[in-house]
Amino acid sequence: MSRKATLLVCLFAVASSAVADEGMWLFNDLPIKTLKERYNFEPDQEWADDLRLSSVRFNSGGSGSFVSSTGLVLTNHHVASETLAKLSSKELNVAEDGYLAADQSKELKAPDLELNQLVSIQDVTDKVMAAVKDGVSAEAAAKARRATMAEIEAASLKETGLRSDVVTLYGGAKFHLYRYKKYTDVRLVWAPEAAIAFFGGDADNFEYPRFCLDVTLFRVYEDGKPAKIDNFLRWAKAPVEENDLVFVSGNPGRTQRIFTVDALRYLRDQRNPWVLDFIRRKEILMQQFGLGGPEQKRRAQDDLFGLQNSRKAYTGMLGGLQNPAVMKKKMEEEATLLNAVRADEDLKPSLDAWREISGIQEEKAERLGMMSTFRSRTYDLAETLVLMATEDKKPSAERLREFRDSARESLEQDLFSTAPVYADLERAKLADELARLVEYWNAENELVQKILDGKSPAARAAELINETKLLNHKANKSNVEMLRKLAEGGVESSTDPMIQVAKMMEPLLREQRKIAEALTERERQAYAKIANATNAVQGTGTYPDATFTLRLAFGTVQGYQEDGESVPAWTTMGGAFKHEESHGSTGDWKLPESWTKAKDKMSPNTPFNFVCTADIIGGNSGSPVVNRDGEFVGIIFDGNIQSLTSDYLYTDEVSRATSVSGAAIRESMIKVYGAESIANELGK
Amino acid sequence: MSRKATLLVCLFAVASSAVADEGMWLFNDLPIKTLKERYNFEPDQEWADDLRLSSVRFNSGGSGSFVSSTGLVLTNHHVASETLAKLSSKELNVAEDGYLAADQSKELKAPDLELNQLVSIQDVTDKVMAAVKDGVSAEAAAKARRATMAEIEAASLKETGLRSDVVTLYGGAKFHLYRYKKYTDVRLVWAPEAAIAFFGGDADNFEYPRFCLDVTLFRVYEDGKPAKIDNFLRWAKAPVEENDLVFVSGNPGRTQRIFTVDALRYLRDQRNPWVLDFIRRKEILMQQFGLGGPEQKRRAQDDLFGLQNSRKAYTGMLGGLQNPAVMKKKMEEEATLLNAVRADEDLKPSLDAWREISGIQEEKAERLGMMSTFRSRTYDLAETLVLMATEDKKPSAERLREFRDSARESLEQDLFSTAPVYADLERAKLADELARLVEYWNAENELVQKILDGKSPAARAAELINETKLLNHKANKSNVEMLRKLAEGGVESSTDPMIQVAKMMEPLLREQRKIAEALTERERQAYAKIANATNAVQGTGTYPDATFTLRLAFGTVQGYQEDGESVPAWTTMGGAFKHEESHGSTGDWKLPESWTKAKDKMSPNTPFNFVCTADIIGGNSGSPVVNRDGEFVGIIFDGNIQSLTSDYLYTDEVSRATSVSGAAIRESMIKVYGAESIANELGK
Repeated sequence: MSRKATLLVCLFAVASSAVADEGMWLFNDLPIKTLKERYNFEPDQEWADDLRLSSVRFNSGGSGSFVSSTGLVLTNHHVASETLAKLSSKELNVAEDGYLAADQSKELKAPDLELNQLVSIQDVTDKVMAAVKDGVSAEAAAKARRATMAEIEAASLKETGLRSDVVTLYGGAKFHLYRYKKYTDVRLVWAPEAAIAFFGGDADNFEYPRFCLDVTLFRVYEDGKPAKIDNFLRWAKAPVEENDLVFVSGNPGRTQRIFTVDALRYLRDQRNPWVLDFIRRKEILMQQFGLGGPEQKRRAQDDLFGLQNSRKAYTGMLGGLQNPAVMKKKMEEEATLLNAVRADEDLKPSLDAWREISGIQEEKAERLGMMSTFRSRTYDLAETLVLMATEDKKPSAERLREFRDSARESLEQDLFSTAPVYADLERAKLADELARLVEYWNAENELVQKILDGKSPAARAAELINETKLLNHKANKSNVEMLRKLAEGGVESSTDPMIQVAKMMEPLLREQRKIAEALTERERQAYAKIANATNAVQGTGTYPDATFTLRLAFGTVQGYQEDGESVPAWTTMGGAFKHEESHGSTGDWKLPESWTKAKDKMSPNTPFNFVCTADIIGGNSGSPVVNRDGEFVGIIFDGNIQSLTSDYLYTDEVSRATSVSGAAIRESMIKVYGAESIANELGK
Repeated sequence: MSRKATLLVCLFAVASSAVADEGMWLFNDLPIKTLKERYNFEPDQEWADDLRLSSVRFNSGGSGSFVSSTGLVLTNHHVASETLAKLSSKELNVAEDGYLAADQSKELKAPDLELNQLVSIQDVTDKVMAAVKDGVSAEAAAKARRATMAEIEAASLKETGLRSDVVTLYGGAKFHLYRYKKYTDVRLVWAPEAAIAFFGGDADNFEYPRFCLDVTLFRVYEDGKPAKIDNFLRWAKAPVEENDLVFVSGNPGRTQRIFTVDALRYLRDQRNPWVLDFIRRKEILMQQFGLGGPEQKRRAQDDLFGLQNSRKAYTGMLGGLQNPAVMKKKMEEEATLLNAVRADEDLKPSLDAWREISGIQEEKAERLGMMSTFRSRTYDLAETLVLMATEDKKPSAERLREFRDSARESLEQDLFSTAPVYADLERAKLADELARLVEYWNAENELVQKILDGKSPAARAAELINETKLLNHKANKSNVEMLRKLAEGGVESSTDPMIQVAKMMEPLLREQRKIAEALTERERQAYAKIANATNAVQGTGTYPDATFTLRLAFGTVQGYQEDGESVPAWTTMGGAFKHEESHGSTGDWKLPESWTKAKDKMSPNTPFNFVCTADIIGGNSGSPVVNRDGEFVGIIFDGNIQSLTSDYLYTDEVSRATSVSGAAIRESMIKVYGAESIANELGK
């Protein structure tokens, strides 16, 4: 499970009445009553605040936690993998071979990682709502709302110096201001080998039992020194046991549980099949690139992993939607709700919202997905500069969201990153994107002809990548000096071929964004009505759909039944060796040498991975799992295959979240990796 | 390159005026004049007859040749691979590890291979044309033509006992009766390891220089004894040299050189992108299945290879169509032709044909590709039985083509094949096909609901495969006894779940076939007009588009220029070891142990692979390459990446056909495989 699963589609929403251990709860609206009733547990404010402040968001898409006063941050290896790839080279393959900093001076600075700690939440719904006058068009409403949100963010940033994001919740029924402390000096302390972090590879991904040490340790720095952290997680003395209550504090990326049946039909019949075709295309592309040799394979590895992970996740999601039993359940739930709405004179007008959503799905099928950009880092740089040249002339509140003043620091950290950019990989990616352009718009299209300039997609891509000055070809990096110069001005007169192509595409991109925003706004308004109607029928005490912001989930450690067999909640470190053997000790089932060597030293019964019923989804990767006392017992890294429908439907019968146990992390650091001194920092 | 590239799309056509070494010539209309002018070579009838009778068609999709009086047939390993997979099991992996029969009693009988030797060609155009009355509808014309063709075939079969096919040439301007001697008792004599047959794997496929021993030897039997063969190829004493004239006699599967620019646009914008999405989907499916373990990998290997090969071929074809320079050339050629047609009062009416073709492309985009069948061997068996139950009640001439009396023997050889069918692989394939069904028709569709029976695609596929009596699950085979019973009657009353699903799909399948046949017929009539107009403008002396029937191509052994570098015509056996080393001796670049062991014994300078300018395409795989004296000098196994546009455009600048040299075959049989006695049969 990964950050990357969240990147391809993006929406919002609100849940219907929560059942069982369901729920991704807001930290300012925790399910106190349910916890009391079901588990006789009453978290106090201090417990909640400490957990919130110990939680970390990886802006690249994932979760983590502070695990020491000395700035150590624990996340998944697969959340770190993008950074590990950026820190790797032909000579030092950190992503594949792992890393252990011999001392603090050897901790490796991530080129463009931003971590967020959620400092406060404030309800600003009234303020945002007040900005929209009754009876104005959806477009005008969106504009007014966007302006107000930008003003709130700007004022908050000015006042507190904290990153300030207004978050849209319950499909637009509520707006909360989230303030984050940012950490941008993040350094790699320790990562195990990919072979044990992702043991069993693509085949074992989303399966259980698992045997993965899917963790990486970073350290945040301030002013060049390890940051002093007040709120961090203590290490539990004993592992949790079967049926123990546990909590997961992390940033689920996206769920769609509020979705109407028609919206799910759009996903099932249009969107998800398209996404899967797209993913498979890119997966094959990266595989083919990797066939060029070990160095090409290394360069494509992180993309390939993300694509394979997304493909498996989407296959599971689509599989659920194609299961008549799942859809029947959603239809029955909707029918019950609609009957209640119909029976209530006050709510009846909101029936329009369902019709509106239905109509929007048809428009989406027709109008969304226009080919208006290229997925290539080099092109992305050009596109950002071209948009920026126009956006920066507008007042902050009127700009496209990522160009507002409040987002500038994050934008620049990405734009001026010193992470590697490989020309050969970029050529392959851009060639495929230009081929997609021809497929989408058709070769006779004037714009397409202008962009191809009489050449084949492959030849044109090679020319563009080879000739652009946005890259420093020799250094395998972008040309940051040139990027800074262009960001300050000169895009209009630039003769750089990549900038010129981005200019050609700009009108199309702006048109597509406008269409998407208008549809989103209309959908937001309709879902806000549905959310209000749902709350009126079912009472409050629900949670909003995931928005890649901090949430609390809860559940118990619990095995499950599969094909008539019991799947136990736990695996052990010793079990990893049996798992290796039973798969012929080859390919992705080959343990790293470090483990084979340390086999006799480690305690084979150390709990390795475990499953619980907590309600999670992509983006939760790296979330700490804590016990009643708020102590660290594990780290989420996956969900089982049955959990893949939780995008739109949660069940706790067989759906499970998968974690690495805290015990295995310590045990392996000490017995396998000789990282005892760092292990001793954990929880202190 | 492979037979499989030809399976996904299937059309016909005719060429415009041939240039340079272009052409896939009919054996009854050889380019005598061109050969005389360009190469001062005049083949006599005996030369041509001997080459034709020495050539072999593999009905599974490929070419080969008789290479001894004792029935030895040489083809490519990748043409044989389907049979090699069928002869393999968990215990004896012939496909991967190779095979050498210790003596004739150990030669392994292929479960369902049919080889064809072209005995005669007869022009029956007048007869077929006479069947169609002026002014009748396209449908009536097709029916009348089909009936006449069936009558001709039936009469010929009765008269000669030979397989008799009426072949449609020049897009329907000509019809020739091809009579074949069939060989159905075909036994495996020798195959090298996949590691050397496909050295360099998917990465090296369609590349050059190459180092592949892509060959397999079969022997045909009659009455349980090795067949006595009169016409077979002698082994050339010396390898051909640079610039030597060579000939290729084989069965190119399909070209589309007659295609109008609008037809190519349909391929570029609609058909090929769709096919590629489809191939990538199945490629990932087979990869995923193979992750289950070594045995699963083995079971999926042949499918996976075919898919990868097709994907690369289609990527090249689409790449060519997306190259503005290629399309410009086709447009200029068409414009020149159209001007000439417009200027000629007699030809002017045929302009309609271009408009008709253009209209048909739009209809194809809308009406073709309906999901009306499932790609699964088990389903295929059920579908054949269900169609057969109805077809067999009609007179032979009115049946769907594959059910006519003249085709019955071939049909039954396939239907009652004892080749392995693996239930686990079938479940995976059918699950994906049912998912495609939902995607295509939509889950609310009544038929879809009936077929899924309230279950998910995966659950329903498992149920169908597990419960059907068409399979003998324990033996990993189909249940031939049951198939024979159902073929004789009882399909109507069968309660077998797979038969029932095939019955549900039958109306859809018949509708789709009817649409496809009607479009094909209209297209055929239009292309026949275009062919006649083209001949009138350019004179005869052309060749028809490929139809998977025997053709003669010619060219010279010649290197080429690539990215400013000279690519030599030849590689050597010693070069294979250097190629291995330069790719790290891992993965697909690991030579088999047999080669490593024999390295010092073999002559490193033995010519291994070579390229020539002959005009070939998928289906030509396994074609013999002969010199002026008609002696065997090599065997076609691939084309370079630049040749992939030859589906619709031939050039001899950089487009090359790739062969294994006869010298390398002998050298490796003797020095590597200890197959001296069989090597001594070659050419004798």
